[in-house]
Amino acid sequence: MTIAVQTQGPPVSFINKDGVRTGLAIEIARMMAADMEVELIIQDYDWKGLIPALSSGKADFIAADMTPTAKRHMQIVFTEPVFYSETIAFAMEGSGYSKWQDLNNEGISVAATQASSWADTARKLLPNAELKEFSGGTAQAVQAVVSGRANSGLSDKATIAGFMSSIDGIVVLEGELAQEPLGFATRPDSMHLLLALDNYVRLIQADGRLQQQVDYWWNSTAWEADHK
Amino acid sequence: MTIAVQTQGPPVSFINKDGVRTGLAIEIARMMAADMEVELIIQDYDWKGLIPALSSGKADFIAADMTPTAKRHMQIVFTEPVFYSETIAFAMEGSGYSKWQDLNNEGISVAATQASSWADTARKLLPNAELKEFSGGTAQAVQAVVSGRANSGLSDKATIAGFMSSIDGIVVLEGELAQEPLGFATRPDSMHLLLALDNYVRLIQADGRLQQQVDYWWNSTAWEADHK
Amino acid sequence: MTIAVQTQGPPVSFINKDGVRTGLAIEIARMMAADMEVELIIQDYDWKGLIPALSSGKADFIAADMTPTAKRHMQIVFTEPVFYSETIAFAMEGSGYSKWQDLNNEGISVAATQASSWADTARKLLPNAELKEFSGGTAQAVQAVVSGRANSGLSDKATIAGFMSSIDGIVVLEGELAQEPLGFATRPDSMHLLLALDNYVRLIQADGRLQQQVDYWWNSTAWEADHK
Repeated sequence: MTIAVQTQGPPVSFINKDGVRTGLAIEIARMMAADMEVELIIQDYDWKGLIPALSSGKADFIAADMTPTAKRHMQIVFTEPVFYSETIAFAMEGSGYSKWQDLNNEGISVAATQASSWADTARKLLPNAELKEFSGGTAQAVQAVVSGRANSGLSDKATIAGFMSSIDGIVVLEGELAQEPLGFATRPDSMHLLLALDNYVRLIQADGRLQQQVDYWWNSTAWEADHK
Repeated sequence: MTIAVQTQGPPVSFINKDGVRTGLAIEIARMMAADMEVELIIQDYDWKGLIPALSSGKADFIAADMTPTAKRHMQIVFTEPVFYSETIAFAMEGSGYSKWQDLNNEGISVAATQASSWADTARKLLPNAELKEFSGGTAQAVQAVVSGRANSGLSDKATIAGFMSSIDGIVVLEGELAQEPLGFATRPDSMHLLLALDNYVRLIQADGRLQQQVDYWWNSTAWEADHK
Repeated sequence: MTIAVQTQGPPVSFINKDGVRTGLAIEIARMMAADMEVELIIQDYDWKGLIPALSSGKADFIAADMTPTAKRHMQIVFTEPVFYSETIAFAMEGSGYSKWQDLNNEGISVAATQASSWADTARKLLPNAELKEFSGGTAQAVQAVVSGRANSGLSDKATIAGFMSSIDGIVVLEGELAQEPLGFATRPDSMHLLLALDNYVRLIQADGRLQQQVDYWWNSTAWEADHK
């Protein structure tokens, strides 16, 4: 079984301190190959190379954190969601905000990456708050909150978990503002494999192994101690 | 992308005041075509013409409020449920009933269309109440409740929402007595399209757009101000 | 429509007191055939004969309580879960334990079949309790609890329901420790039938008929009065 994965960074697909490719998507595929008792061959591509590798038959499926858009689905076929990107709000400890809805008030500022889906979400769900957009990624929004230039910020749960392990005092507010499904993908003519993937994801959902992997790699920085 | 829809009435598929075909099923298909960046061609048929139009290849899929029965599934293939028909109970304001279970008592009468699935549901779930069957559609059951000839009635949520916008004093009791899935359908050999539809429905469930459409067209009469 | 079922025992597939094959899997298939208005032909095999009967084309699908493992899915294709095997904890009335989590304390012993998945679950989720393994099936674990040699036991819900109908004083503690999906299966080239099965299971989930069957056959011993 050959998979196409992204030459990326933690926590979905990366080379660890021992030179071994690992991460959330890799380990799910590895478990599946082990349960099927087949060999797993991992091919890594940059983001743009993933779909061509699949379509040309070099790989059997893509194991990445890819959003199953309607447009991409015209070329390839996505599994049911394997995990989710969750938009959450963060603030400094002692801010007095407990859930993201508490931010939707005049006089409260919310930091987000410029022109990101997080900024869109802030405009839609927190119309009474003041949106402050920062170019250059979530690091700038986090910096704004830490330094007091913004009362709070929006990003995805996995990214903020990363910052929380290196910066003290950041807390995630209760609740999710949005959730984006992420799935694996096969060729449209690989129905048996697609169904096998959907079946496997259901199995490891039921027995708790999927949640374990998602908690280890995606919802926390537990993986850092072992792989960084 | 060509869809077969029903020449019907609101809220699933109808011609609005500006002469444009719209409704819940139409707008979901329109969103999908826009996200795929393909043209959407709409063909309207009477109810009996929908499956032949699909089977003969005139349309790529049926976008209607069709129940995915085992019998129909022998000819065509249904998507996962897109929306639901929900059986609810209604009464007049001040009746003192708060949830549908409150109706299951001697001395309480429940109006429903004769020989309908709602009458069946009343017999099954409200055995202690007195069932009053009315021929001629939900309008007669509503009339019976408004005039005091029955204490309450059963119908589906979308139909009662329609009556509530024109008749004062009707309230929907808490809870649903039954729920029937409604789906779109493709030909059995259109696996890629079927999976694309299932994928799209999951996407717009996750980002809230499906609920928005269902609330606008199906669970309320919000659409009337814009289209009637 | 021809199905392969297991020559087994209640409650999934068995010959009742009138010489008729019945049980949870049989009755779900019978309902589906009735709704499709097709004849149902039932072929019974021992456990090892089920997959060969399907693969060779003798049967259209397998209707059994089969776990959709990754390995089996290489040969056949499983439906979405039809029902679940649920691991629960039991004790004697008056034990003072109300939920399975109450067992996770020193000085409490938990009985389970030797080398079973229940013993694994006890080791994983009840590390503070003392695990007592018994060879020879759940009957020995039940006997240990009844006689006071163990404070509690682990098994699956359906099996314990069977013992509860013949032995007084056994109670099931609140909550499930684990859940294993069980599904039906088709050949990889029977896509239309696979989707028809998935569709049918969703239909009878929505209208309550699946839960009715599962409660009658699987979660209770209600079937005994009619069939034993």
